[in-house]
Amino acid sequence: MGGVEQSKICCIVRWRHHCEIMSKASTKQLYDLANHMRIDTIRMTCAAKSGHPTSSCSAAEIIATLFFHEMRLSKAFPKNPSSDRFVLSKGHACPILYAAWHQAGHISTEDIMNLRKLTCDLEGHPTPRLDFIDVATGSLGQGLSCAAGMAYAGKYIDKASYRVYCLLGDGECAEGSVWEAAGFASFYKLDNLVAVVDMNRLGQTQETMFGHQVDSLSKRFQSFGFHVVVIDGNCVEELLSAYSDARQTTNRPTAIIAKTLKGKGIAGIEDENNWHGKPVPENTIEAIRERFVYKTDVIGKFESKPLIVDAPDVKLPIGKLKIVEPAYKIGEKTWNFTVFSVATREAYGTALVKLGDVCPRIFGLDGDTKNSTFSEKLLKKHPDQFIECFIAEQNLVGVAVGLQCRDRVIPFVSTFAAFFTRAADQLRMAAVSFANLKCVGSHVGVSIGEDGPSQMGLEDIALFRAIPSSVVFYPTDAVAAERATELAANIRGIVFIRTGRLACPVIYDNNEVFEIGKGKIVRDGSSPKALIIGAGVTLYEALKAAEKLESENVEVIVMDLFTIKPLDEDLIIQSAKRAQNRIITVEDHYQAGGIGEAVCQAVSAKDIHVFSLFVLDVPHSGPPDALLDKYGISARCIVDAVLHAIHPPN
Amino acid sequence: MGGVEQSKICCIVRWRHHCEIMSKASTKQLYDLANHMRIDTIRMTCAAKSGHPTSSCSAAEIIATLFFHEMRLSKAFPKNPSSDRFVLSKGHACPILYAAWHQAGHISTEDIMNLRKLTCDLEGHPTPRLDFIDVATGSLGQGLSCAAGMAYAGKYIDKASYRVYCLLGDGECAEGSVWEAAGFASFYKLDNLVAVVDMNRLGQTQETMFGHQVDSLSKRFQSFGFHVVVIDGNCVEELLSAYSDARQTTNRPTAIIAKTLKGKGIAGIEDENNWHGKPVPENTIEAIRERFVYKTDVIGKFESKPLIVDAPDVKLPIGKLKIVEPAYKIGEKTWNFTVFSVATREAYGTALVKLGDVCPRIFGLDGDTKNSTFSEKLLKKHPDQFIECFIAEQNLVGVAVGLQCRDRVIPFVSTFAAFFTRAADQLRMAAVSFANLKCVGSHVGVSIGEDGPSQMGLEDIALFRAIPSSVVFYPTDAVAAERATELAANIRGIVFIRTGRLACPVIYDNNEVFEIGKGKIVRDGSSPKALIIGAGVTLYEALKAAEKLESENVEVIVMDLFTIKPLDEDLIIQSAKRAQNRIITVEDHYQAGGIGEAVCQAVSAKDIHVFSLFVLDVPHSGPPDALLDKYGISARCIVDAVLHAIHPPN
Repeated sequence: MGGVEQSKICCIVRWRHHCEIMSKASTKQLYDLANHMRIDTIRMTCAAKSGHPTSSCSAAEIIATLFFHEMRLSKAFPKNPSSDRFVLSKGHACPILYAAWHQAGHISTEDIMNLRKLTCDLEGHPTPRLDFIDVATGSLGQGLSCAAGMAYAGKYIDKASYRVYCLLGDGECAEGSVWEAAGFASFYKLDNLVAVVDMNRLGQTQETMFGHQVDSLSKRFQSFGFHVVVIDGNCVEELLSAYSDARQTTNRPTAIIAKTLKGKGIAGIEDENNWHGKPVPENTIEAIRERFVYKTDVIGKFESKPLIVDAPDVKLPIGKLKIVEPAYKIGEKTWNFTVFSVATREAYGTALVKLGDVCPRIFGLDGDTKNSTFSEKLLKKHPDQFIECFIAEQNLVGVAVGLQCRDRVIPFVSTFAAFFTRAADQLRMAAVSFANLKCVGSHVGVSIGEDGPSQMGLEDIALFRAIPSSVVFYPTDAVAAERATELAANIRGIVFIRTGRLACPVIYDNNEVFEIGKGKIVRDGSSPKALIIGAGVTLYEALKAAEKLESENVEVIVMDLFTIKPLDEDLIIQSAKRAQNRIITVEDHYQAGGIGEAVCQAVSAKDIHVFSLFVLDVPHSGPPDALLDKYGISARCIVDAVLHAIHPPN
Repeated sequence: MGGVEQSKICCIVRWRHHCEIMSKASTKQLYDLANHMRIDTIRMTCAAKSGHPTSSCSAAEIIATLFFHEMRLSKAFPKNPSSDRFVLSKGHACPILYAAWHQAGHISTEDIMNLRKLTCDLEGHPTPRLDFIDVATGSLGQGLSCAAGMAYAGKYIDKASYRVYCLLGDGECAEGSVWEAAGFASFYKLDNLVAVVDMNRLGQTQETMFGHQVDSLSKRFQSFGFHVVVIDGNCVEELLSAYSDARQTTNRPTAIIAKTLKGKGIAGIEDENNWHGKPVPENTIEAIRERFVYKTDVIGKFESKPLIVDAPDVKLPIGKLKIVEPAYKIGEKTWNFTVFSVATREAYGTALVKLGDVCPRIFGLDGDTKNSTFSEKLLKKHPDQFIECFIAEQNLVGVAVGLQCRDRVIPFVSTFAAFFTRAADQLRMAAVSFANLKCVGSHVGVSIGEDGPSQMGLEDIALFRAIPSSVVFYPTDAVAAERATELAANIRGIVFIRTGRLACPVIYDNNEVFEIGKGKIVRDGSSPKALIIGAGVTLYEALKAAEKLESENVEVIVMDLFTIKPLDEDLIIQSAKRAQNRIITVEDHYQAGGIGEAVCQAVSAKDIHVFSLFVLDVPHSGPPDALLDKYGISARCIVDAVLHAIHPPN
């Protein structure tokens, strides 16, 4: 909770050891705990006048048995590296999770009664503003990927005993991301991962695809390589047996298909439709109270199993990572693309290896594009620091979000920039998770050429700029690309690096210093008439345009942005003021949310005129040069735009 | 092809009827056809110096048997409503598809040798610029959803005999979207749908998750409700038998797991790694030629089965749809949210029913949010015009793209605006498909309140603005929302309507006329000092701010945008000029790609100052009013911004 002070990592509370098979009394106490939690969820959602008590109540026994019998948790420091992990993929059922931490004594009664208020971090769906939440959920179907990332870290990186439990709803099992995660988890034999499906039959508006046909879901998880146990999910004894079964299963993850009733225990509402996402009458708690075996308050009296403290201490060197200096030769000033040319995607791969050399917790993840993104360089040098995630970009990002939890890993995720759109929702949620995630998208813009529009990243800048607090790099040459990669590793948060397909000349010295939010003036003049702003392939077009303009006695300033977010507003404004208050932006990207709009907003009250060149239509396949020209972002188009800006038509 | 004139719908070519079991000779001819097509793919990719011959050659027999034995196709008019459909989900293998249409006589030799050139519509990945392509592919895993949409249209809407065939790669079966589509197809018993998986073992950079373990994929499709046939996919006889089996299967779709070899038939390259996506030596065609049974040219000599002409003629009344006039009462000018208040999401549902009343081909699709988006109104009135797609947004959009092919249906897809990000890649590809698709996203912005950030659409304007040629509506009140829905149905292309959760007062008369790209001045003054631009919930905040400012003797103009794209640039500039060249934009959305940036770009050379209010951070749960204020977009914040603009600090 916001007000609860976190204990330090060294202060691990040792919990009373529960024996493996609980006594009959303990089983009864678990039923009681489930009912206490039911009452909590009803009370807190009544107080909030909104929320999901029925989706919570179906899972009461699942959560009670996990928290007070199966899992090894640290109440004092929930993010303890050796603690088991719990991911509530069906995030709307968070009242039951809050109730569990309340019953554990970690959240006060006052706090749970402030559910969903602006002043309380017990939000409508869970976020890591709470110390016991690793990843935000609430967009369905995403939890299992994050859990699989955590389980991968536990088994292969930390090589520790902690286990990962993920609670899914049955409705969200229609989401493909669940099956991407399932395929990944079984491929990597994540036997420390347990998926529990709360199969309560009812979705938001009607019965799910599966209803109560447990076989249908059971067969799906089996076919995806899981060990599957089907149980009555409101039966404590069956739950305990299933967890034990999972613990004894090796080389594959376990799915527990827990058949439950939505609103279980709430008289008149249990298993009824039309009770999704709304409070139930508060007087229904009386009948639940009647079911207590022991008529006593139990808050704080039950504890989890003790931790097995074997996860290594990890201190990520964020802010201190240094790579070996780049080693390129400057290309010819003719911008001939054959001399000393290197693609920024290749320089990214080179820098990633250098980061991997100095930090074993730098990881590369890719979606079967590693020879195109050049992340395969890391695989070749440090195979233990690379995870092939196959063609499943939602899970690719989800696994990375899982890996970075509790500062276990700094994940670099790469694929074609266009295919990050496949994981746009995962990236949106990664922002809500305040994740430390590095994304590197290659093959941007029409300049990829012949492969055509399906492979061209043309909305990736908008996608990543829209993430609160994100940093977006767009390095132009190999030196800049290596430094962007280094900077990305040293920033906490979501960083995107936009890399290009074409090999382009190196324009910066190897010792050039790059900073976040600082652009470069790469060409200047004594009486410039316009400022041209580019990045990546369009920077070269801008330089070509500048030479052509100079031959016509028009001087311009050319600025290489390097960072698209945050923008170097000061340098843009200063340079524009020197250049008769005229800016021409040019980008290999669509208009919306791109460089042009960002620059327009930055100078929107500065009496500067901005003219923007961008890709307007769905492009066609063709040679890169021809496409740059056809879609209006070539040197020729820039020359025209500058002349038009200087001499506007009447 | 671009230059081939399409025949009219009435001019259906009747093809020679093939008997159900081919003669031995015919089987040999199919092998010959497959090898002719192999040679075509090698030659065309050598000429293009790029492309995917090996991924094509694994599928040569699959395509030869489909095109020249199994499918009922119209060579003269491929989009004939009664023709079988073919979707190449593994779009990179398009050379083999182009080769098939070449062998059928529909594409000239000259054209195939222009593969991937700017002047030729045989692009690097297929797009509907070609008359035989319904949906663009190339972003893997999307084809089966589109095919399922077409199959749904065939079985339930057209009630016709045409069948739908979809060729998938094995690598793309790691994509969750494939399993979303599979779940949908079996739930709706699409026995007119056949998925053929070209299981050639090798991905781009390594063996796929499955390798050649046919059982693993076979079990997955079985568990998702498919009838499954496992065959040698380079064996014509087994392929023909499998198609026959599929045709006799009722109440469920069929998956044919076709075990093949990548680069099949190419000496030294067959089944070898490191040959993905690159031309092979042209001299490898000699050995393939040696395998011909009949040493004759066959182009145009083989035809498909005849069509069963039973699909209805459909003429969608695009541009002519009219709804019954809205029937609301104007709310009180105090902007009290309780009097005559209606949420725009509810008005959308009302208008959708009205559209459904006048056109049986208006369809609603939703992802188990229909009581929140109000699309359930259509379900209740016209159950045959509604498809529940469950919680699987990628497939939701993919099915809609499939439905709209060949002008069968005008699909309206609704879910929470935030969850459209889940289908961002499908929307990106829908643009490449030039699809006629209507998307309606509800629950936008921090003003949804207590549910918290996971449910808040805050990047949806950017997402939809980034689609080339899209139209984006953001209606403020119920009258505007009904008219936006009507306009959306009458525009060809991708349209997004942004609707809100909160009930808000009606501000427009029922007979108010709305047009695409035309905003409304909803408050004016004789000597205005600023123009405030809002839409949706922020328009009400702007109106409240205007009243407060007037009490301080500051007059402002308030403009309701209605259309975010295309923007009403003329009205914005004229109004700003009248308002001392000052604009304040305010939006319940993040900055990137939002209203503020769009307006800044629109006035970027007009000597107008723009000050933008938008949501900067990841929001918290809380009451709507409190969140509007905390995140800087309330009336109070607008007042401050206007005063700041008028009296800027030094």
